[in-house]
Amino acid sequence: MQNVNIGVIGGGSWGTALAILLLNNGHNVDIWMRDSLQIQHVNEFHENKKYLPGITIPSNLKLTNDISKVIHDKQVIVLAIPSHGVRQILNDAKNIVDKDQVIVNVAKGIENNTLLRISQIVEEILPHNPYAVLSGPSHAEEVARNIPTAVVSASKDKEVAEYVQDIFMSSYFRVYTNLDVVGVELGGSLKNVIALGAGISDGLGYGDNTKAALMTRGIIEMARLGKKMGANSATFSGLSGIGDLIVTCTSMHSRNRKAGILIGQGKSLEEAINSVGMVVEGIKTAKSAYELAKREQVVMPITEEIYEVLYEGKDVKNSVNNLMLRDKKPEMEEIIRE
Amino acid sequence: MQNVNIGVIGGGSWGTALAILLLNNGHNVDIWMRDSLQIQHVNEFHENKKYLPGITIPSNLKLTNDISKVIHDKQVIVLAIPSHGVRQILNDAKNIVDKDQVIVNVAKGIENNTLLRISQIVEEILPHNPYAVLSGPSHAEEVARNIPTAVVSASKDKEVAEYVQDIFMSSYFRVYTNLDVVGVELGGSLKNVIALGAGISDGLGYGDNTKAALMTRGIIEMARLGKKMGANSATFSGLSGIGDLIVTCTSMHSRNRKAGILIGQGKSLEEAINSVGMVVEGIKTAKSAYELAKREQVVMPITEEIYEVLYEGKDVKNSVNNLMLRDKKPEMEEIIRE
Repeated sequence: MQNVNIGVIGGGSWGTALAILLLNNGHNVDIWMRDSLQIQHVNEFHENKKYLPGITIPSNLKLTNDISKVIHDKQVIVLAIPSHGVRQILNDAKNIVDKDQVIVNVAKGIENNTLLRISQIVEEILPHNPYAVLSGPSHAEEVARNIPTAVVSASKDKEVAEYVQDIFMSSYFRVYTNLDVVGVELGGSLKNVIALGAGISDGLGYGDNTKAALMTRGIIEMARLGKKMGANSATFSGLSGIGDLIVTCTSMHSRNRKAGILIGQGKSLEEAINSVGMVVEGIKTAKSAYELAKREQVVMPITEEIYEVLYEGKDVKNSVNNLMLRDKKPEMEEIIRE
Repeated sequence: MQNVNIGVIGGGSWGTALAILLLNNGHNVDIWMRDSLQIQHVNEFHENKKYLPGITIPSNLKLTNDISKVIHDKQVIVLAIPSHGVRQILNDAKNIVDKDQVIVNVAKGIENNTLLRISQIVEEILPHNPYAVLSGPSHAEEVARNIPTAVVSASKDKEVAEYVQDIFMSSYFRVYTNLDVVGVELGGSLKNVIALGAGISDGLGYGDNTKAALMTRGIIEMARLGKKMGANSATFSGLSGIGDLIVTCTSMHSRNRKAGILIGQGKSLEEAINSVGMVVEGIKTAKSAYELAKREQVVMPITEEIYEVLYEGKDVKNSVNNLMLRDKKPEMEEIIRE
């Protein structure tokens, strides 16, 4: 693999961890951070203290808050900002992006109101650029410490998926390819909603059995929606589906799970958001997921309960009872029905 | 649901927890324990101190070490002993079992050498009895504390699956039905092998990313074998597949995970078995799974590495490297190939 020039947009924990990985793979990497004070701090301490404490930032990582600099002369642009900021940043950048630059999205979410996935927003604003999404069970804190991790590079163009695989793959970062962009994007987004639910279950003091059931039934309803929207339901059984759900629901690194635990313990949504302090993607995504389920006429009992807890003040204990006491059902109803 | 007479064979943690659940559901329950001293203790202390400490055994649970008593006059017989003891107990019991008694198996394993699943052993010895397997993410310690749990009742006869669903279902124990006995039995058995691997990963000091990847790739290779053997691959994405794998890989209750952690920390197989003190199903199952994979000509890289670590003294660190540094692959190769 030859070395390429890469611009990473977003200096949060994930953007920073990926920039270091790409540097270690021998690429030339620029990273864009919005906040010039943050840049100053990182340059001074060689550490991103706010988002990735304890990890040394190599001195050959070039930091900028100038969007044109991070895009100029790059073969690959990595989008590593919270999903609700993607449209704005692409609009800011669209006149300077070249149409053969490969866009690699690592953000996870579904835009509120439009209910668009990130690839659809990119396609709207940069219709000619090659696109891949990189997703899977990958806490930034662990990737930054070279802990073995496996993810998926998905693009509808097999060559683009393989190009991205080549760029990111290392001895501790294994990349598989997948052609199902819809499934990979939905998996990465919707799992944050289920992770909120897993946190709520933990916060209520329920057990490992409860959480495993919630996750399993959660991935089944995610796959049900995905299939209706054109995804391959097998994708939800892969790294970007159940794999990412597992890591998000079981790890203390997960902000979505943390927020859920607080809500399960009786905190309000606002208190939970303030206490976590970073973006909790699942809260916005719960709203989009709820509306998608209605639009696509797909039954998503767990997502619906979580939406009602978050946005309609429903009592969490009633939610668990509702889920446990539903009609007796076959496990694979949606499959048998077909 | 009318009350029925149920005999539970096996007074370990799971047999005891299920006997209590069935009592709470209003059924008449006898339980068979091999050890008359254990029966004496349980009768005296109203507690199964060895296998289910801290849980009160209701006084209306009838204990016996006479196999004919636990079978006589029952509509349902629950097999709750370690899988390698099933053949012997069925041979002991076959002349007193009535052909309309419903056999509910809750043991998980694949017989060494014959490579038979439990349903196949039951069919060999009791060919006329209705059969269901009850499986899913269900630590006995949690079910005994009424913590919300969801499992699957699988039978090739839909009415039998529903009958078992009716008997076990309660406000904290949700039972789904499934017709795929092969998939449910293989999922419950093979997950113990992957759980050993997850434990090894934890014992080596790897992270949540590593374990989630191992579990995801593990369920994919389990489904690959299952499909070859006639299972529905969707079953592996359900409660008896990924659900049970999640609970086994993430909980400190799991003996298979505990044994794996010790091996990852450098203990020998024998030391690990002695330290855990109870049956570690995954160790025997790893051998059967390895041989099944060879017989069915299915690639199972994780199962193979675990087998070689357990039985051929392979260094665990080399195993992880082997798994991470394999050829670059598409995620869904086995699906694309078809």
